[in-house]
Amino acid sequence: MNIRDLLAVFGALLILLPPSSLAQEEEPASPPTMSEVLANSQPTDWRPVDPEETLYLHLPSGRVIIELAPGFAPRHVANIKALVEERYYDGLFVVRSQENYVVQWGDPAEDPAARRPIKSAQASLPPEFYGSITKDLSVTLLPEGDVYAPNVGFSQSLPVALDPATDRVWLAHCYGMVGVGRDVAPDSGSGAEMYVVIGHAPRHLDRNVTLVGRVLQGMELLSTLPRGTGTLGFYEDPSEYVPVQSIRLGSDLPAADRVSLEVLRSDTPTFEALIASRRFRYESWFADPGGRVELCNVPLPVRVVR
Amino acid sequence: MNIRDLLAVFGALLILLPPSSLAQEEEPASPPTMSEVLANSQPTDWRPVDPEETLYLHLPSGRVIIELAPGFAPRHVANIKALVEERYYDGLFVVRSQENYVVQWGDPAEDPAARRPIKSAQASLPPEFYGSITKDLSVTLLPEGDVYAPNVGFSQSLPVALDPATDRVWLAHCYGMVGVGRDVAPDSGSGAEMYVVIGHAPRHLDRNVTLVGRVLQGMELLSTLPRGTGTLGFYEDPSEYVPVQSIRLGSDLPAADRVSLEVLRSDTPTFEALIASRRFRYESWFADPGGRVELCNVPLPVRVVR
Repeated sequence: MNIRDLLAVFGALLILLPPSSLAQEEEPASPPTMSEVLANSQPTDWRPVDPEETLYLHLPSGRVIIELAPGFAPRHVANIKALVEERYYDGLFVVRSQENYVVQWGDPAEDPAARRPIKSAQASLPPEFYGSITKDLSVTLLPEGDVYAPNVGFSQSLPVALDPATDRVWLAHCYGMVGVGRDVAPDSGSGAEMYVVIGHAPRHLDRNVTLVGRVLQGMELLSTLPRGTGTLGFYEDPSEYVPVQSIRLGSDLPAADRVSLEVLRSDTPTFEALIASRRFRYESWFADPGGRVELCNVPLPVRVVR
Repeated sequence: MNIRDLLAVFGALLILLPPSSLAQEEEPASPPTMSEVLANSQPTDWRPVDPEETLYLHLPSGRVIIELAPGFAPRHVANIKALVEERYYDGLFVVRSQENYVVQWGDPAEDPAARRPIKSAQASLPPEFYGSITKDLSVTLLPEGDVYAPNVGFSQSLPVALDPATDRVWLAHCYGMVGVGRDVAPDSGSGAEMYVVIGHAPRHLDRNVTLVGRVLQGMELLSTLPRGTGTLGFYEDPSEYVPVQSIRLGSDLPAADRVSLEVLRSDTPTFEALIASRRFRYESWFADPGGRVELCNVPLPVRVVR
């Protein structure tokens, strides 16, 4: 199904790029660069990151800030908040760092029975691998398409993929996306174990795990962790574990320990201009400006407000 | 231009996957997993890595092994060998580590006039951003296509992209690929500065820089380097530089300091089976086996022979 068919089905709910950008050969007249797009953005192009939907993951090396995605994984996000509330994560570890793949944290005990008991939160949840394409879903589509899905684009400032034929929408496994580890049973995840993508987008994980958010700040603290030498990059020796000192909601932290962040809204002309600035590269360094951009190569700008 | 048109032009020189794999919905009857494909591989499915086409990059943390690609960038590869020969790199530094992008090594001096002089090698070279699609080019095509190029696949165990309309073939910027840094002028690169991709494939760099090879071993020594806090991830303080102790050709090292490696040939049925094993994931963990695979998500297996 192409974009025009999709439009016929979902009409104005899907935000399309201007028709000129559909033709690869046709280059815009005087396109701004990405820095110009951001410099020219208006305050309304940005939305504040809600401290109640934000995790602060404290490692010995510093703080990682993760924005949760309740719009796509409401039950898992609620459960992660319950786990934070009961201080489930505090004192656990980063247990896995696999080259060009993921970094993962949780309870290192191999035997589930030996793991830290979960109190008030759920120990497992029905999967939220994908959702339905509801009438109020707003998606800025990428007209260049995608290898993995019939349609891709951005919704709520997150990379999404869609399959109108099966009425499914799901978050895409781009760099920095955070997911919920699980065992073989699809409903065995709870949020007690989480991972972040640190390599080329492993899109084969799409629709196989519940993605719950993305890293907004501190990504380098996770991506540079020494790789584990065990199978799948698990640390073999407990001395290699990296302590998770605590995970807190932003709203539970004193104002002084919190950062006010804003993300660029993906349902704005400014975001479309951002995509365009990545599609054709007119910076003087580029010998070939290109003309296409792939889902996970569109940056999702974040800024510190104060 | 689709694959069938391409085939009509280039005939049997392009190795096609079996027609069944063209249909996304049609799943193979009893597909082997990737480990089974590799376990069942024959000695002739592998080719030895030529020590004369291999760089050993020695860092304080260990050794990175890079296979050069003279088939795609003959002049740059020859020049890099000349630079190795004159010991150009020894005592220089990793000067840049940019999150989700590249790690780069060379002379840290900003002023080109202040950089270490190049003796016998060339100080700049005509770009080798792409080549012609010659009659003897063998490519195992990926039928699922690509966002960035009309056709993609594998040639000489490397990821390649093709545009038959312009008669161009080029190496693709997948994770672990090694390129030659340059200034604004397309012919300003020489190999004196090199970088490696450590994040999601920056395919907009395709046809803008000369790629010269890929990392076969030790990638984690580069990808986990602390990120630079300067513009574009350059280290701001010289104390952050990571010493390049030396770069040698494998053939210049004593046998005891060398590793015998083999790479899986990409022009074999085994490689096609490998692609198929990544296209549909039948391992029990997968709730959704997928049905598509993207160029930079196909692993390029390497093994140590002794």
